[in-house]
Amino acid sequence: MKIAFLGPQASFTQLAATQLFPDEELLPQANILDCFIAVENGEVDKAVVPLENSIEGTVSMTLDYLYKTPSIKIEAEAIMPIAHHLMIHPDHLVEETEKIYSHPQALAQSFHFLDTHYKTVQRQDFSSTAAAAKYVSENPDLKIAAVANQFAANLYGLKIVHRNIQDFEQNHTRFIIISKQQNSYDNHKLDVLGEKSGLLITLPEDHAGGLHQVLSVFAWRKMNLSKIESRTLKTGLGNYFFFINVVGKWEPILHENALEELKSLNVDIDFLGNYKEYLLEG
Amino acid sequence: MKIAFLGPQASFTQLAATQLFPDEELLPQANILDCFIAVENGEVDKAVVPLENSIEGTVSMTLDYLYKTPSIKIEAEAIMPIAHHLMIHPDHLVEETEKIYSHPQALAQSFHFLDTHYKTVQRQDFSSTAAAAKYVSENPDLKIAAVANQFAANLYGLKIVHRNIQDFEQNHTRFIIISKQQNSYDNHKLDVLGEKSGLLITLPEDHAGGLHQVLSVFAWRKMNLSKIESRTLKTGLGNYFFFINVVGKWEPILHENALEELKSLNVDIDFLGNYKEYLLEG
Repeated sequence: MKIAFLGPQASFTQLAATQLFPDEELLPQANILDCFIAVENGEVDKAVVPLENSIEGTVSMTLDYLYKTPSIKIEAEAIMPIAHHLMIHPDHLVEETEKIYSHPQALAQSFHFLDTHYKTVQRQDFSSTAAAAKYVSENPDLKIAAVANQFAANLYGLKIVHRNIQDFEQNHTRFIIISKQQNSYDNHKLDVLGEKSGLLITLPEDHAGGLHQVLSVFAWRKMNLSKIESRTLKTGLGNYFFFINVVGKWEPILHENALEELKSLNVDIDFLGNYKEYLLEG
Repeated sequence: MKIAFLGPQASFTQLAATQLFPDEELLPQANILDCFIAVENGEVDKAVVPLENSIEGTVSMTLDYLYKTPSIKIEAEAIMPIAHHLMIHPDHLVEETEKIYSHPQALAQSFHFLDTHYKTVQRQDFSSTAAAAKYVSENPDLKIAAVANQFAANLYGLKIVHRNIQDFEQNHTRFIIISKQQNSYDNHKLDVLGEKSGLLITLPEDHAGGLHQVLSVFAWRKMNLSKIESRTLKTGLGNYFFFINVVGKWEPILHENALEELKSLNVDIDFLGNYKEYLLEG
């Protein structure tokens, strides 16, 4: 099976994809759009893209492309703690470090550590944490360090000198597996945190209380929401669609009745699937 | 007055900040967190940061820092169309271009244009569109181009050879002005699109229908929402807060009653302000 993922090599998304698909062919893509195109054109079977809180790729794009390509559904969600490590070329000593390279957001997320321990060391933005790690490995003559993940350290043979330098212990990111099928991903080796349904809902017009009416459908059935996000439609500034996650396993009568009731409200619904949420290692 | 903004020089945020504060001292910051810290510590009076759909900075950080620093409020929102241009060093001809540099998301947003007209030209990720433009200007010996904004072309003396190469005409991004005051930004030279209130709402527990109950407060008053976004609290995976925009001018009795009713539901509310939404040039 061919699996596209948001690259480059050693990105956090690859770290997720290797855990979700340890035995499949993984194909890095330059951006989130390319992952969707590869799935839509059938060049790959599935793709792994970030859904929330990623430092690589504007994640709102994932919602926009889900909206634009109704043939693409969600097979699974996966959550991974984000751990940043400071790494150097094994020939160097960390005390000699003259410059630290990483993605601007990774440098931001490690701000307090770097400011305490490496206040006078210059920091340099790079397009990704993985690219920064690669640059350090390819330039053994330079006394430089990178902030990147464990996977990048392994891939590029770098030595981790400080682990878990991110400011917030519980920082994490979410990924989804997308494909043209529904609900076919199942992995018994990973921890399952729960089940949920994903829906894209477009209101008929931007009227007061429209969203409230939609949420009533879930509220009186005691169906809990774990995520709600409005996104502007590209057709104009005032029009919105909503991405909603409903907590729980698919129960045919309950869920199908809810979908029927939603349709009677004259809203457009793209049911993205009922799927499991997996826990990955950071 | 001192105004911090998410840098680097010639970023889209600077393009916004120069229109919002044409006569003030603008101070670029390395990341969104630094903008919040500068405001909180009183190093600057205000800051301009992206709120939605930016390619520079993970915008979800803006919501997280608003939540974490209750002393910081919103003074205004501004929306700007995102326009990408292809630019080269004025000494070169565009036909000679061997490599195109930009932020990965800007390359992604110009995918169809680049794929049609420059399919065989290599693309190279850079940490920002502005940094790519600067690199082109500083390397006149290389036959390279950058995808960046008008401001970067002016600042670095580059020649724009193709305008508006972004795939979606109506792509835009939103910024907010943050400070420790409330509602003190007013600009008669810019177009005003409307008024809105910003609220951060934390539910007492993750119970079914909690959000629905909160939205009832607005629905029966016919107060329209233009944005809603749930964000995970860093304290654990299952806890959320919500960022909500309520459309309209502040009407004391209506709004204050709504806030009172919200408080009676035992939810935590951080009222970020009632403020104008301005239209900027891209």
